[in-house]
Amino acid sequence: MKTDEKTRAPVARIPDADVPGTVERMRKGERRAIASVITELERLSAAAPALLRSLQPHLGHALVVGFTGPPGAGKSTLVNAIIAQLRQQGRTVGVIAVDPSSPVSGGAILGDRIRMTAALDDDGVFVRSLASRGYLGGLSPAAVRIIDALDGAGYDVVLLETVGTGQNEIDVAEVADIRVVIAAPGLGDDIQAMKSGLLEIADVIVVNKADRPGAEQTLQQLVGALSIRATMSDKVPVLKTSAINGEGVPKLIETLDQLGGKVRAEDAVSRRRRRARYLIARAASDIVANRIKAGSKGGLDTLADSVLSGTMSPHAAATRLLED
Amino acid sequence: MKTDEKTRAPVARIPDADVPGTVERMRKGERRAIASVITELERLSAAAPALLRSLQPHLGHALVVGFTGPPGAGKSTLVNAIIAQLRQQGRTVGVIAVDPSSPVSGGAILGDRIRMTAALDDDGVFVRSLASRGYLGGLSPAAVRIIDALDGAGYDVVLLETVGTGQNEIDVAEVADIRVVIAAPGLGDDIQAMKSGLLEIADVIVVNKADRPGAEQTLQQLVGALSIRATMSDKVPVLKTSAINGEGVPKLIETLDQLGGKVRAEDAVSRRRRRARYLIARAASDIVANRIKAGSKGGLDTLADSVLSGTMSPHAAATRLLED
Repeated sequence: MKTDEKTRAPVARIPDADVPGTVERMRKGERRAIASVITELERLSAAAPALLRSLQPHLGHALVVGFTGPPGAGKSTLVNAIIAQLRQQGRTVGVIAVDPSSPVSGGAILGDRIRMTAALDDDGVFVRSLASRGYLGGLSPAAVRIIDALDGAGYDVVLLETVGTGQNEIDVAEVADIRVVIAAPGLGDDIQAMKSGLLEIADVIVVNKADRPGAEQTLQQLVGALSIRATMSDKVPVLKTSAINGEGVPKLIETLDQLGGKVRAEDAVSRRRRRARYLIARAASDIVANRIKAGSKGGLDTLADSVLSGTMSPHAAATRLLED
Repeated sequence: MKTDEKTRAPVARIPDADVPGTVERMRKGERRAIASVITELERLSAAAPALLRSLQPHLGHALVVGFTGPPGAGKSTLVNAIIAQLRQQGRTVGVIAVDPSSPVSGGAILGDRIRMTAALDDDGVFVRSLASRGYLGGLSPAAVRIIDALDGAGYDVVLLETVGTGQNEIDVAEVADIRVVIAAPGLGDDIQAMKSGLLEIADVIVVNKADRPGAEQTLQQLVGALSIRATMSDKVPVLKTSAINGEGVPKLIETLDQLGGKVRAEDAVSRRRRRARYLIARAASDIVANRIKAGSKGGLDTLADSVLSGTMSPHAAATRLLED
């Protein structure tokens, strides 16, 4: 990748002089302009600062909804159904599909699905697939800038769909304004065991594939699990959807809009800063963890032995290490 | 929980004078002794240091194998099949089932499954269910001490089975000597997309449910995905198993033993310290992330704005923050 001599950022494909014009065309809904702005921001090219400055006055309109849940719960189908419904209501939709397979497969599998979905003739939908940094690496920081691009382009709702598991899903949950956890009946023991984990991060829980046997039972189990956590029970709605026939989708969107009202009470700058703070916190914790793994073995081994002998907790050992 | 006045650790249920006798009974395979040692270590009671000192000479025998993979891949069934096979070969097995549902359901769902599995009459198998610290919190540090307890009790193999997703699975992968990633045919787009993520951490990849249609295709896709990463292609075996009829399980165990030979070349102290170092690194990165989230908003907001404006990467912002 060619880099700018001064900033060492990737060379911009949009010259500085074209930035205002490009943003203007983007605001009018020109797909090529939107795509090229996203690409510049994804690459963090030399044009990114100027683009983000131009976008600034337009940011804070979009509601960012994150979708997470186990494989087999029908996340993609549900997201498609939500897109269709929002379009019927006349709202525009940006989609960021976070695809951990991209580094290996080039995202081909998801790519196909997205081509089907995106309804290329519909200017009211824009889908962008984004490689994750892998299972352990988590969400690319570029996602936060792509949210800004879609927001700046004027899309009413930005859907952030994660596929797969790991740090990725955790990051998507942290970056979204609203977190939807998708479950489904009949996924066996594993999904039962996942319940409480996923409950921790949910603003809305959806039992998808409600047309299948066991949906009501799954829903009741989730409600039961929530009721044990008294502070959450009256806050987290549990809904049934059947993405393939659209059942329950209008109610889900209504619920998202209700939650969206609360989100919008927070000012746009705070919401954006919260995302950036999370990315910085993640980066900092990665740096610290890597320093420790690579670090001087002498002092660390003494602490490791204290942890192994039960005389010190990992937390106490870490605190001691950070004090030095 | 009652705590010891001097150490502030939970009060020991095994008095100091009984520690050597308890460890002796544990070494003879007395289940009650094993269970009580595990409980003391899990609670990190006042008896833990003395117990770990007594166990010290016996540690480093067990091979610790971690199992991870998406819901629906049949992890539990495969682990059961492996237990059965190892027992036929006359080897003893300790199992730690990491169950993120425990905080809510008390682990009842898994509990049932484990009671079926454990073959209570068989003294050669010991199963312990361990609550995780939830989706975001990851593996309890107690897991590392329970590995020591099972190792000290003389079990030949310790299987660490994780259910669910998130930090939990990442931690199990880091703590195990050998990491087995389990896939299955027919889990749809999601499992395809997960491939590369899971490949990052795999020492062995298993396509379970090989009796089902599409198993060969899934296997070929995994082999193909691995071949793109040239450095890994000749190292990571991809095997087919059918846990319900035991097919492929002997070959899997053979492969684990081959890898185990390499693991055992590393000395026992280093292996244990590696686990403790990981726990310390995790704790340190949690502390740092929490400090940042709670920290002084003034300076952090400036850095957050730099990240949002594209003039600074999260990594650079984090480095700056850690320097202060």
